[in-house]
Amino acid sequence: MNGSGPSRLVDPLEDPLPGVGTYEDFNTIDWVREKSKDRDRHREITNKSRQSTVALLHSISDAFSGWLLMLLVGLMSGALAGGIDISAHWMTDVKGGLCLRGFWFNHEHCCWLSNETTFQERDRCPQWQSWAELITGKSEGPFAYIVNYLMYIFWALMFSFLAVILVRAFAPYACGSGIPEIKTILSGFIIRGYLGKWTLIIKTITLVLAVSSGLSLGKEGPLVHVACCCANILCHLFTKYRKNEAKRREVLSAAAAVGVSVAFGAPIGGVLFSLEEVSYYFPLKTLWRSFFAALVAAFTLRSINPFGNSRLVLFYVEFHTPWHLVELAPFILLGIFGGLWGALFIKANIAWCRLRKTTCLGHYPVIEVLVVAALTALLSYPNSYTRMSGSELISELFNDCSLLDSFSHYYLTFLADRPAGPGLYTALWQLALALVFKMMITVITFGMKVPSGLFIPSMAVGAIAGRLLGVGMEQLAYYNHDAVIFKGWCSQGADCITPGLYAMVGAAACLGGVTRMTVSLVVIMFELTGGLEYIVPLMAATMTSKWVADAFGREGIYEAHIRLNGYPFLEPKEEFEHSSLAVDVMRPRRMDPTLAVLTQEGMTVGEVESTHFSGFPVVVSSESQRLVGFVLRRDLLISIDNARKRQDGIVSASQVVFTEHTPPLPPDAPPPLRLRCIMDLSPFTVTDHTPMDITVDIFRKLGLRQCLVTHNGRLLGIITKKDILKHMAQMANRDPDSILFN
Amino acid sequence: MNGSGPSRLVDPLEDPLPGVGTYEDFNTIDWVREKSKDRDRHREITNKSRQSTVALLHSISDAFSGWLLMLLVGLMSGALAGGIDISAHWMTDVKGGLCLRGFWFNHEHCCWLSNETTFQERDRCPQWQSWAELITGKSEGPFAYIVNYLMYIFWALMFSFLAVILVRAFAPYACGSGIPEIKTILSGFIIRGYLGKWTLIIKTITLVLAVSSGLSLGKEGPLVHVACCCANILCHLFTKYRKNEAKRREVLSAAAAVGVSVAFGAPIGGVLFSLEEVSYYFPLKTLWRSFFAALVAAFTLRSINPFGNSRLVLFYVEFHTPWHLVELAPFILLGIFGGLWGALFIKANIAWCRLRKTTCLGHYPVIEVLVVAALTALLSYPNSYTRMSGSELISELFNDCSLLDSFSHYYLTFLADRPAGPGLYTALWQLALALVFKMMITVITFGMKVPSGLFIPSMAVGAIAGRLLGVGMEQLAYYNHDAVIFKGWCSQGADCITPGLYAMVGAAACLGGVTRMTVSLVVIMFELTGGLEYIVPLMAATMTSKWVADAFGREGIYEAHIRLNGYPFLEPKEEFEHSSLAVDVMRPRRMDPTLAVLTQEGMTVGEVESTHFSGFPVVVSSESQRLVGFVLRRDLLISIDNARKRQDGIVSASQVVFTEHTPPLPPDAPPPLRLRCIMDLSPFTVTDHTPMDITVDIFRKLGLRQCLVTHNGRLLGIITKKDILKHMAQMANRDPDSILFN
Repeated sequence: MNGSGPSRLVDPLEDPLPGVGTYEDFNTIDWVREKSKDRDRHREITNKSRQSTVALLHSISDAFSGWLLMLLVGLMSGALAGGIDISAHWMTDVKGGLCLRGFWFNHEHCCWLSNETTFQERDRCPQWQSWAELITGKSEGPFAYIVNYLMYIFWALMFSFLAVILVRAFAPYACGSGIPEIKTILSGFIIRGYLGKWTLIIKTITLVLAVSSGLSLGKEGPLVHVACCCANILCHLFTKYRKNEAKRREVLSAAAAVGVSVAFGAPIGGVLFSLEEVSYYFPLKTLWRSFFAALVAAFTLRSINPFGNSRLVLFYVEFHTPWHLVELAPFILLGIFGGLWGALFIKANIAWCRLRKTTCLGHYPVIEVLVVAALTALLSYPNSYTRMSGSELISELFNDCSLLDSFSHYYLTFLADRPAGPGLYTALWQLALALVFKMMITVITFGMKVPSGLFIPSMAVGAIAGRLLGVGMEQLAYYNHDAVIFKGWCSQGADCITPGLYAMVGAAACLGGVTRMTVSLVVIMFELTGGLEYIVPLMAATMTSKWVADAFGREGIYEAHIRLNGYPFLEPKEEFEHSSLAVDVMRPRRMDPTLAVLTQEGMTVGEVESTHFSGFPVVVSSESQRLVGFVLRRDLLISIDNARKRQDGIVSASQVVFTEHTPPLPPDAPPPLRLRCIMDLSPFTVTDHTPMDITVDIFRKLGLRQCLVTHNGRLLGIITKKDILKHMAQMANRDPDSILFN
Repeated sequence: MNGSGPSRLVDPLEDPLPGVGTYEDFNTIDWVREKSKDRDRHREITNKSRQSTVALLHSISDAFSGWLLMLLVGLMSGALAGGIDISAHWMTDVKGGLCLRGFWFNHEHCCWLSNETTFQERDRCPQWQSWAELITGKSEGPFAYIVNYLMYIFWALMFSFLAVILVRAFAPYACGSGIPEIKTILSGFIIRGYLGKWTLIIKTITLVLAVSSGLSLGKEGPLVHVACCCANILCHLFTKYRKNEAKRREVLSAAAAVGVSVAFGAPIGGVLFSLEEVSYYFPLKTLWRSFFAALVAAFTLRSINPFGNSRLVLFYVEFHTPWHLVELAPFILLGIFGGLWGALFIKANIAWCRLRKTTCLGHYPVIEVLVVAALTALLSYPNSYTRMSGSELISELFNDCSLLDSFSHYYLTFLADRPAGPGLYTALWQLALALVFKMMITVITFGMKVPSGLFIPSMAVGAIAGRLLGVGMEQLAYYNHDAVIFKGWCSQGADCITPGLYAMVGAAACLGGVTRMTVSLVVIMFELTGGLEYIVPLMAATMTSKWVADAFGREGIYEAHIRLNGYPFLEPKEEFEHSSLAVDVMRPRRMDPTLAVLTQEGMTVGEVESTHFSGFPVVVSSESQRLVGFVLRRDLLISIDNARKRQDGIVSASQVVFTEHTPPLPPDAPPPLRLRCIMDLSPFTVTDHTPMDITVDIFRKLGLRQCLVTHNGRLLGIITKKDILKHMAQMANRDPDSILFN
């Protein structure tokens, strides 16, 4: 750091000064600088590799470290997901009873090992005892029911209490689904500890607890967070990724794909989810690596085999009956329902979360969780559809031949449409009640201080609605097979309606309405069925759902939560629609004092230290305002501090010099401090007449943190990412101060 | 065009001057300007929509026009692909004989209608007569064989002659695969007529002819070109897409997905192909629309049902036997073969094409095609594997239970590994000869003046190699089932090796080596099988193939052809690896005269007209060199021309004024010409110290055509896309003048 010789770029890797080029917490990174740093690093390694064999090996290992990292991320995430699945399955069963053969067996496994059960009654075996049997010795009767009911509520409270306490005590970042924050981090924001080891450990444990407690939440979103934590921790093994924020974000994008891949067993869908929904910067190299990691994770999970059926996918669907063009009408109806529900859910959930933020409700998160858990358990136990876990429910609804009691009467005749029996009416009533209950409880559950995903509850709502419509259509077809719309494709006694397909379409529609996913959602659903036949219904419903939901507000749930939390996130999908110019957005405003600048010579160390903005343009002279470069206050202070320690004679009166050659100084002056090497010699500039839509495009595509504004070659002002977000908030009639961070 | 009032942007839609803002042939478009134009247009429509119901309806129809266009593109491309499939199938069969029932029936259809054939002998029926039977009345014997042979060659020559003559006479752009040019067009280049109606018509007809002639080429690449032509022509129906080059390219990206979707019946793979391989600017909106169009096209094709089996995919694969980890070794071996073949093919093909360009060979394209066609027919007829069309061959090789004679002996015992019989040895020899023949002939075929795709020949090479290795492995397993590597998973008599899978993996490896596709290739193959089981072998082979091929040269065949043709294409995947600065690349160079600029006032119309660069920076004064804006010569000349016609008193001595307010002029001076409205007030600038890697990134991501270079706020030079490409060519020790266009 002797300052001699012009350095063409701020390059902290070659710079012995620690700290220069790093970022503070809750700050935005400069993508251009990070990528440039990585290219410099790569260039250096390539150049060195020609000199010696060791360097060549280093260069090769460096090139393959990305693949190795992806392999590790896939293995670790797959293993964790398997562990979570197994534990959650066991703990969900513990709410109902225990296995006498060994408490660590879950219900299915316990009875599977028993020889006394037939296939039909595989749920019932003497080794599995309900709590009533264990405590009172009775397995039937109202008393046993009440004991079971109370134990169910007890365990639900117990699990949710543990979950919220652990989150609060050890890792406050472990709550929620994590996807809004991950989107923000991927767009180039620093949140220290959000993807750290404590978050990983606590999120993994509390996710199991939260899912087992029976709350209306899923594990899919949090699994994305878990996978990203794995990736972030594993990044520390490789210098290339540890030291570069941009490179690390490439790995995190891939990890998001891994998360969805293990959640649904859909690797291609996962990659598209990462591309469409989560990632900000997704080069093609990342696409290929994400795909690799997603596959590794999926196969790791399959070899762990948590569902005990060697299947990769979460909801395996077996039907292959064709659908008829007429059925597009109910499918589109489901799309409309999904869109309406999505829009309503977002509005209600955001209102509720805002209430939590602004009123005293937010001060008692533990009590809130306990109350909601108690309410959920109390209301869900009597209804067999809500008593089972969300993913089990969806699985039952997707399949045409359900094992549920109420449905088994109904499916006595397998291959023909059939009249509704009394069992079916009960089932329909229970389903309708479950629908209302799920819709209400999910609104207040999502956003509590426990890990909570939204995929499963949304899909459950849609699957119930779809199944109801499907059964309705089936009855309609049964009683009116001679009507015009059914004529020709639905003869009497034929099995022409598949209610399971309706459930699937409904689930896709509701999930689409809430998250506004499109391609990735259809591909995930495609991977569940493995056939292209059902893509058209899924697509029609998803498209309708998105259009309907967009009519009520263009934000998906994740964007809404990002905005609620005031993160500096520049939405890559939304177009900037106003006709402002750069001059309208830049600071200083018309009335403000002029922009604080440094001159390339003539300022002293003391003057520089007394400034209080986070970055400064360096100009030739204050009169000409001709731009030379840009320097960050953080880098300045670190360098001055370091120079004071190491370099003799640096005092407050020393001149700070940004020029290539030191100007002549008076003989009695202290030695100058040369800082050209920490100055960014290629700051981005736009003219004051640049339309803001172009400026926003530049910020998004290049990942800028700030941009200088010039007029006829003179420096005029500065635009930061925060300025743009504030301007956008203002244009949308929102409070510009809702943008909290830098 | 009265010049009063400052216009903030060049907006040709509101501008009554036709021509301003358009491009000349073989020029690069300015993405920023095009996108900005579209946003302005959208903003205007949105604003107007609040005023009246008609405007509201217009706004809604405008919003949905994109979807309508996609629907039309899907329908038209699907229908055309169906027509091409049916015609090519028939014409391929015509080379062998005719149907007596009606000459328009193809072989399969002809015999299908016959009641006299059994399923086993469905190839043989009295209604289908070979040429020998038709001409001489004999169907057996050496004479009949020779007559058939000669007729086969005759038709091959006939079809290829027609194809090359039609291409040369009506649409020279219809030759080749079209993908290199489409990549260039999508990156923002103008080639007028390349996607026009004549190209479409001629390409569709000649594609059928070329495929039927038996040349070693496929229809997959050209189908992408055909789909893009459809899209381009349909764009003319909608103002939004007709008038905006950037918007039109979004549609073309989607059309590329449609092309692959109909070629393979793989809509998701098609979308990923467009994203990974072809497109330059691919916003998420396009992803969703491409997916929609690809699905529409796939289902249109299915309802036309050209293969007569209601299947969507080109190569339907039925096997579901698992593979063993040990088999990864041969799969990786296939990957290495694919990579080597890919690298070799590219080098050989480019050398051959260069020979064609530089020697007199290029002057006789018709003779060249005829010679190659004759050679192909002559050599391919005796071998039953080369006699059939490429896609039929691949289909046979992929399937485990082949219907081919030589294989039917071999597959008498279906479900067990079996010893090689004499029939198998013949088949293996024939396959080996076919492999050598295909490898040689494809090198000289690709690049001739007929429509020619590369997917099928590459896949055929890989499928043959894979099948050979698969049969080898099978024999190895049969005779050594007690060896260490087979022990435990391959007992005697068990069917543990699937040669069809080897063929599939080999096809993917070779295609990957030639095109360097990765994700999209694996997804296309996944869509063929519909199961995730075979993704790992496919991935291992594709990855190995890419790495091996990349070791010999990073360019795929399409990039190599782009470079051969000198198109100005800035590869989005490749990193700029040199440490040059903007000052090293910009013009004027150190020794050159200074940059030609216009001053914002003081220049006359005559002076402006006498300049000869294609664009000029406008500065405050030549002394200060402070940048005001940028103006294109084309726009300047059109405006001056127009002003001379409409505005009184504009003579050569009139002052050209770019300022907001007209400066005071001497009383006897002619009225000034105000041209601020055609000036781009927000030209992009970088500093002279900006590293070229960042500059290249800016060019790629924003799609710039030129960028100005400043030093300490003074204008210093200009960098165009062509300068960058020339610089890159120079750094790679290639001839910088190989970049031909602007």
